[in-house]
Amino acid sequence: RINADRLRDSLMEMAKIGPGVAGGNNRQTLTDADSEGRRLFQKWCEDAGMTMGVDTMGNMFMTRPGTEPDLPAVYVGSHLDTQPTGGKYDGVLGVLGALEICRTLNDLGIKTRHPIVVTNWTNEEGTRFAPAMLASGVFAGQHEEAWAKAREDAKGLKFGDELKRIGWQGEEPVGARKDKIKAFFELHIEQGPILEAEGKDIGVVTHGQGLWWLQVTVTGKDSHTGSTPMPLRKNAGLGMARMTELVHEIAMGHQPNAVGAIGHCDVYPNSRNVIPGKVVFTVDFRSPDQTILDGMKARFEVEAPKIAQDLGLGIEIEVSGHFDPVTFDPGCVKAVRDAAERLGYSHRDIVSGAGHDACWINRVAPTSMVMCPCVDGLSHNEAEEISKDWAKAGADVLFHAVVETAEI
Amino acid sequence: RINADRLRDSLMEMAKIGPGVAGGNNRQTLTDADSEGRRLFQKWCEDAGMTMGVDTMGNMFMTRPGTEPDLPAVYVGSHLDTQPTGGKYDGVLGVLGALEICRTLNDLGIKTRHPIVVTNWTNEEGTRFAPAMLASGVFAGQHEEAWAKAREDAKGLKFGDELKRIGWQGEEPVGARKDKIKAFFELHIEQGPILEAEGKDIGVVTHGQGLWWLQVTVTGKDSHTGSTPMPLRKNAGLGMARMTELVHEIAMGHQPNAVGAIGHCDVYPNSRNVIPGKVVFTVDFRSPDQTILDGMKARFEVEAPKIAQDLGLGIEIEVSGHFDPVTFDPGCVKAVRDAAERLGYSHRDIVSGAGHDACWINRVAPTSMVMCPCVDGLSHNEAEEISKDWAKAGADVLFHAVVETAEI
Ligand SMILES: NC(=O)NCCC(=O)O
Ligand SMILES: NC(=O)NCCC(=O)O
Repeated sequence: RINADRLRDSLMEMAKIGPGVAGGNNRQTLTDADSEGRRLFQKWCEDAGMTMGVDTMGNMFMTRPGTEPDLPAVYVGSHLDTQPTGGKYDGVLGVLGALEICRTLNDLGIKTRHPIVVTNWTNEEGTRFAPAMLASGVFAGQHEEAWAKAREDAKGLKFGDELKRIGWQGEEPVGARKDKIKAFFELHIEQGPILEAEGKDIGVVTHGQGLWWLQVTVTGKDSHTGSTPMPLRKNAGLGMARMTELVHEIAMGHQPNAVGAIGHCDVYPNSRNVIPGKVVFTVDFRSPDQTILDGMKARFEVEAPKIAQDLGLGIEIEVSGHFDPVTFDPGCVKAVRDAAERLGYSHRDIVSGAGHDACWINRVAPTSMVMCPCVDGLSHNEAEEISKDWAKAGADVLFHAVVETAEI
Repeated sequence: RINADRLRDSLMEMAKIGPGVAGGNNRQTLTDADSEGRRLFQKWCEDAGMTMGVDTMGNMFMTRPGTEPDLPAVYVGSHLDTQPTGGKYDGVLGVLGALEICRTLNDLGIKTRHPIVVTNWTNEEGTRFAPAMLASGVFAGQHEEAWAKAREDAKGLKFGDELKRIGWQGEEPVGARKDKIKAFFELHIEQGPILEAEGKDIGVVTHGQGLWWLQVTVTGKDSHTGSTPMPLRKNAGLGMARMTELVHEIAMGHQPNAVGAIGHCDVYPNSRNVIPGKVVFTVDFRSPDQTILDGMKARFEVEAPKIAQDLGLGIEIEVSGHFDPVTFDPGCVKAVRDAAERLGYSHRDIVSGAGHDACWINRVAPTSMVMCPCVDGLSHNEAEEISKDWAKAGADVLFHAVVETAEI
C-alpha cells in the first residue's frame, strides 16, 4: 500500500506553485508556474532514482528502470497543468500518485521486470490552447505537431513559442516511444458526483464520453443602444443568447446521455451603450453515444445559422476540439477492477465525463483509468476537494494495477 | 455662416488623437488621449482669444467675453470623450462646432453682449465609468461629487484618481457657475436614422428619452462541462442568456416607444470547459414615456429573479444610471427652429434617443439641442460618418441660435 501522508504532502507542496485566488490553482499550461511545477516534479523523480526524457511537445517521461530494460515499459501518469480557476487534484493526483508508486516500490525495495515511466502530458486542460489533451494527442498521432505548435491562446501567443519560452521543449521526437508501451494507467478524480453519492471508493473506468468543441463567431453591427430603433438592430448578443438556449435544449433532449454548455464568451466592443457587433463563444457537447454526439453537433450546425439569419447576423462555426467516445482496453480495465477487489475497496464501473490523456493513449497502447470521488462532484473550481482516504484508495489501486502489469 | 472647411479640418485634427482600430476613435474618458485632446482644444480656444476655467470634475469652460461681462453667459458645447470603438463626431462635433462659432464671430468682428462659454463636459459616454454624463450630472446637482469620484472602471481605477493622474482636475468648485447660465445649446449627430431617411438637414430636439441602466450579477457554480450532470448544473451563462431574451422581449412589447439591450457582458471564469459560475452584465432600457420606462425596469426586476430561481442561481441588480425623459426649454427649442427656418434648412422636431449633457443642464438652465443626420444612423461605431454639408447646417443653426441668445 502507498504512503498516504507523503502523497498528501506532495499534493500540497505542488499546490503552492501557481496559487489561485480562492484556495485552488492557476497553473495554466506553458506559463512560468507550469515551468516551476515541472522542475519540482523533475526533482522529486530524480531524487527517487528516475531519469528524465522530454519530447518536442514538452511531454515529460520519468523512467524507473526495470530488471529487463528492453521490455516495453508500463506508463502511468496524467497532467500538471490546471484551469485558470482550477483545483489542486485535477491531473496532479494522477502524476503524483504515479510518483508515489515508485517511491513505495523504493521503500519496499521492489524491482519490476518492465520499466515504469511516470508521465506529465503537456496542455491537458485545453483552456489556454484548444483543444484539450493536445500533446498526448500529438504523441498518439491524432494531431500534426506543426498544427499543434501553431495553436494560439487568447492573446495570440503560439503554443510552440510559449513551450520554448518556458524552457521545456525537449529533444526527443514526439511519439518516438509509442510502440514501446506495454500499458498506460491514469488515476484521476471523478470530477462528477456519482462515486460520492453511491459511497464507492473506486471508479473502474470502462468508457469515456466523446466530445465536440465548436468555436462560434456571430457578427452583427455595433450601434447605439439608445438611438437605434429595435427593427434596425443587428444584435450579436441576442444571437449568442438564443444559441446558448439552443445548446442547452439540444443536450436536454438526450438525458441522461448528453451534456452541453457554453463556457467561454467574449462580447465586442463590450460597452454598456453599444449593441454588441460581435460575440465569440465556444460550445461543448459530450455524450458516450456516438450517434447522439454527432447528432447534437449536426443539429446545432443547422439551427444556429437559422437563428443568425432571423436576426440579420453572420455566423461562422469552427471545430476546435473533437474525440469519439472511448472504450478502454478490457485487460487493463480488469487489472484495475481486480486490484480494487483484492484491496477490498468498494467499486463500480463508470464512464468518464471528462476527456483525459488516457483517451488518446488508448489509441496506441492498452489503457485504462482509476477514478476516486471528489466532494460534491466539483471540479474546474478552486474549491475542488478530495479526502486523504479517497486519494489513498485511488493510488493503492493504481499501484497494484501497475505493479501487476510491470511484473515483479 | 460658419466656415465649413475649418470645422472639418479641426474635426480631422482632433480625430488623430486616440485613433481607433478601424478609422474611428478610442479616446475614452480620463485616458492619456483624453488629456491630449483637451490640450489641443485648449490651445485652439486660447488662440481664438478665449480664457479657460476648469472645475473639480474636469469640466472645461472656455469663455469669449461679452461686452457686458456681468450678464449671464450663453453656454454651448458637448464632450470630447469617445466610446472604445467610437466615431469622430459623437460629442466632438458639438464642442468644435461651438468653437467654430467663436472663430466665425472673430472673423466677422462681432461682439455679443452676453459672454459665450464653450464647454467640454467630462465622461459623457459612461462606458469606462458609469453612469453616462457623469460630470454634467454633478454640475447640475444630480450626483454627489464624492460619489462620482469614487466610480470605478473595469480595472477598479477610480474616476477621481484618474482625473488627477491625467492632470485635468481644476480648482473651480463644480457647479459654482450654474446660476449664471442664460441658456445652453448642444449640437450633436442624431445617432439614429430618422433625419437621413426623411432627407432633413436639421433635427430640432424637443425631448429626450429617459433611461435605466442596471448592472446585473448572476451567480451559479463553476463546474466541469463534461462531468457535471445537466440536472446538477448552476449555469450562470444560461441565466444571462434568458435575461438577454427577457430584455429584448420587454422592449419589443412597447414598439416603437422603447428600446432595450445588453451591451456589456463578462463571463467567469470564461474557460471552454467550465460552466460559467458568474456573469456580470449591463441592461440598457430607454423610452420617451415615463410610464413605459419605469414599467420596463419593474418587469425586469420581477422576472429576472424568477429566471435565476428556476436555474438555482443567485442574482443582484444594481442601478448604474438613470434619468427621466426630458422636455427641453420651449424658448431654446424655438430659437433653434427659427434659426433653421431663417437659414433655409429643412428641419423636423425630434426626440433624442441618446442621453446628452444637455439633458442634465436642462435642469438648471434653459436648454435645447440641434441635431444633424449621420450616415445610416450609425453611431458608437468607428464607421460613424457625416457629410461636410450636414456638419455645416448643424453648426450654422447652432451659430444663429447662440448669437441670437447672446445678443449682438
Ligand atoms: N479532465 C479534464 O478536466 N480534462 C480537460 C478536458 C475536458 O474538458 O474534458
Ligand atoms: N450621445 C451619447 O451617445 N451619449 C452616451 C450616453 C448614452 O448612452 O446615451
